[in-house]
Amino acid sequence: MRTSVDGSEISADFGAFVDQSPCARDPTGRGALSGLTFAVKDFIDVAGCRTGGGSPDWLASHAAAAVSAPAVEALLGAGAQLIGKTNMDELAFSLEGANAHYGTPVNPACPDRLPGGSSSGSAVAVAAGLVDFALGTDTGGSVRTPASFTGIFGFRPTHGRVSTVGVAPFAPSYDTIGWLARDPGCLSRVGRVLLLGSGDAAPINRLVQARDAFAFADPAAATVLRARARAWGAVDEVTVFDGAEAEWFECYRVLQGAEIWRCLGPWITANRPRFGEEIAPRFADAATIGEPDVTRYRAFRQNIAARLRAMIPPGTGLVIPTTLGAALPLKTSPEAIGSFYKSALPLNAIAGHPGLPQVAIPILQQNACPLGLSIVGAASSDEALLDLAISLHKSET
Amino acid sequence: MRTSVDGSEISADFGAFVDQSPCARDPTGRGALSGLTFAVKDFIDVAGCRTGGGSPDWLASHAAAAVSAPAVEALLGAGAQLIGKTNMDELAFSLEGANAHYGTPVNPACPDRLPGGSSSGSAVAVAAGLVDFALGTDTGGSVRTPASFTGIFGFRPTHGRVSTVGVAPFAPSYDTIGWLARDPGCLSRVGRVLLLGSGDAAPINRLVQARDAFAFADPAAATVLRARARAWGAVDEVTVFDGAEAEWFECYRVLQGAEIWRCLGPWITANRPRFGEEIAPRFADAATIGEPDVTRYRAFRQNIAARLRAMIPPGTGLVIPTTLGAALPLKTSPEAIGSFYKSALPLNAIAGHPGLPQVAIPILQQNACPLGLSIVGAASSDEALLDLAISLHKSET
Repeated sequence: MRTSVDGSEISADFGAFVDQSPCARDPTGRGALSGLTFAVKDFIDVAGCRTGGGSPDWLASHAAAAVSAPAVEALLGAGAQLIGKTNMDELAFSLEGANAHYGTPVNPACPDRLPGGSSSGSAVAVAAGLVDFALGTDTGGSVRTPASFTGIFGFRPTHGRVSTVGVAPFAPSYDTIGWLARDPGCLSRVGRVLLLGSGDAAPINRLVQARDAFAFADPAAATVLRARARAWGAVDEVTVFDGAEAEWFECYRVLQGAEIWRCLGPWITANRPRFGEEIAPRFADAATIGEPDVTRYRAFRQNIAARLRAMIPPGTGLVIPTTLGAALPLKTSPEAIGSFYKSALPLNAIAGHPGLPQVAIPILQQNACPLGLSIVGAASSDEALLDLAISLHKSET
Repeated sequence: MRTSVDGSEISADFGAFVDQSPCARDPTGRGALSGLTFAVKDFIDVAGCRTGGGSPDWLASHAAAAVSAPAVEALLGAGAQLIGKTNMDELAFSLEGANAHYGTPVNPACPDRLPGGSSSGSAVAVAAGLVDFALGTDTGGSVRTPASFTGIFGFRPTHGRVSTVGVAPFAPSYDTIGWLARDPGCLSRVGRVLLLGSGDAAPINRLVQARDAFAFADPAAATVLRARARAWGAVDEVTVFDGAEAEWFECYRVLQGAEIWRCLGPWITANRPRFGEEIAPRFADAATIGEPDVTRYRAFRQNIAARLRAMIPPGTGLVIPTTLGAALPLKTSPEAIGSFYKSALPLNAIAGHPGLPQVAIPILQQNACPLGLSIVGAASSDEALLDLAISLHKSET
């Protein structure tokens, strides 16, 4: 049994997997993923399993799924073996990776830090080498943040390119299925199986960096990350927020909150779930959002989206920090957590507001926790982004 | 009690609604849809109801949904009242509107004809005036065909612009939620509530007609439809299939079939459902599709998609027949049904293969069954297409 820095025991699975099983499934076909193993966030249906959503009350109110999410069937059909379902932040409403009911999965890269969430167990299962890749969901950063905190690759697709059938509803205009892997080749092979329709074939041959996004980051991290971005060829600079990051945050808080309350409010009202003390006020806040704010921020989002699409034409990638620094310490004060969200949500909304794809690439420093650098691409440049991650990785090793 | 042309009784609800209820729901908010009523195809989750899928065995293997599909919650939140869930073709695998287990909803426009499917009950509920609008699903024409057969408006959105969370899986790279209404103003208001993200603001100010698509239609219908298309200003002609319609059909059959079997094969294998005799061979065929055909037709589809996107730039609409003629007679021979699909599936795949939006507009002829004329728009031109349907309708009344 391993022990963590504070002397407590680390369970064999790093707390990555949910107890209620058996959700393991053999492959149903052979193909591009034969020989690989994977895990599925417990917000996505697997036939014969109850989807738990990181909430004992959600678990109790759901019967076993009769059919799996198409994304899961596609992976099994391509030859991958499902090992099990993974822990997550309660009903996905957090980027931290903690769960008041089921505990915090251990970050294998930095055991005294949070793993990031809400796809915490999926990231930990991959980072710990328990599976080759994992499915998560990413609404406001829930794949990208834990990828960065645990030092692995993460991908958020263009809106609509991966089916969200069989995923619990949350904030539909931001919801995606994303995936995580230690190796960019694996990340890309999984993408080729999951991505529907046809991508834009143009390779990404021009990188620019978002100056004001790097200005958010911890100064030490920013120095490392910007140097790496320049090494990738991202020399030209653009500004994304133009000083309006507080409005970007509000836009995300309002639109996401209104959608969450519309989707989950009826269930919450009917079931009165026992939320963890960090999560309860977030749903309470979501319930208070009024239509005038929604109307106003929908227009704001539309402007952002048009501006970002123009800034990132096909063939261009925008380099940003995935997170503002390394993983947060396990014991971070509520004030520091609040301040983390003020920057993290606008940063994650660079892809989220316009629905663009983003690949998160781990930057591993010796004797330090991992950092993350990301590239946001044009709509439907998913395949080109995955190819780019492979070639950037090759050039470094 | 009304009687149909053959003297049998027509039930008060035209057979539109499913028995297993109560799935009626009061609005949860006030907004753009206040005062309107709607129905939901029984392939889409409503909290507290079991989703039946037009199959007694699907119904038996599903518990009541714990949460509603986000599309349903959005409509309730905008003030619409849900009247109930509607009948459909078995597991959505048909365009005819018949169901071996639950009977055939009566086509109010032409009671001796099929209503079209698979969103048969949703179309009938709207056409009969039982509700103002209804949700359906459209993979290969399941909203557009019944809209045309029953003489109402139908809409299939750009892929990814309406959440498919809470819909039963079928063929994810073609699956959409669509909607039906008698009035294009209502159709548009519903779209404004359902469509996620921001559309392309450019109005559609140029219409072209697909010559070879009209060549498929019954000669009498083609004459009426082409005259109407010209009256709309669609004088310029393009060719879509270029003689390859048999390949378009095969492409659709292969890709849809492979996805259906991947999504539903495990459930079918585990549950051995009793399918209607028309439906059983379709699933049996889906089970036989091999990977080489899928690979070949994926590439074919990619070429089609690129060609159609170039043919329909923003600002342009492509006018096609919605169906090849009026609704099929209730007693159509299996051979005639087979021949219907050979043309209907390529026609419906003009929007489906590239994932483009399509509005189906009823063409009502005196003393005859309705015909349908459609406009396919550029990606994300959904709002512009809905506006265009309103202005075309105004110019005719």
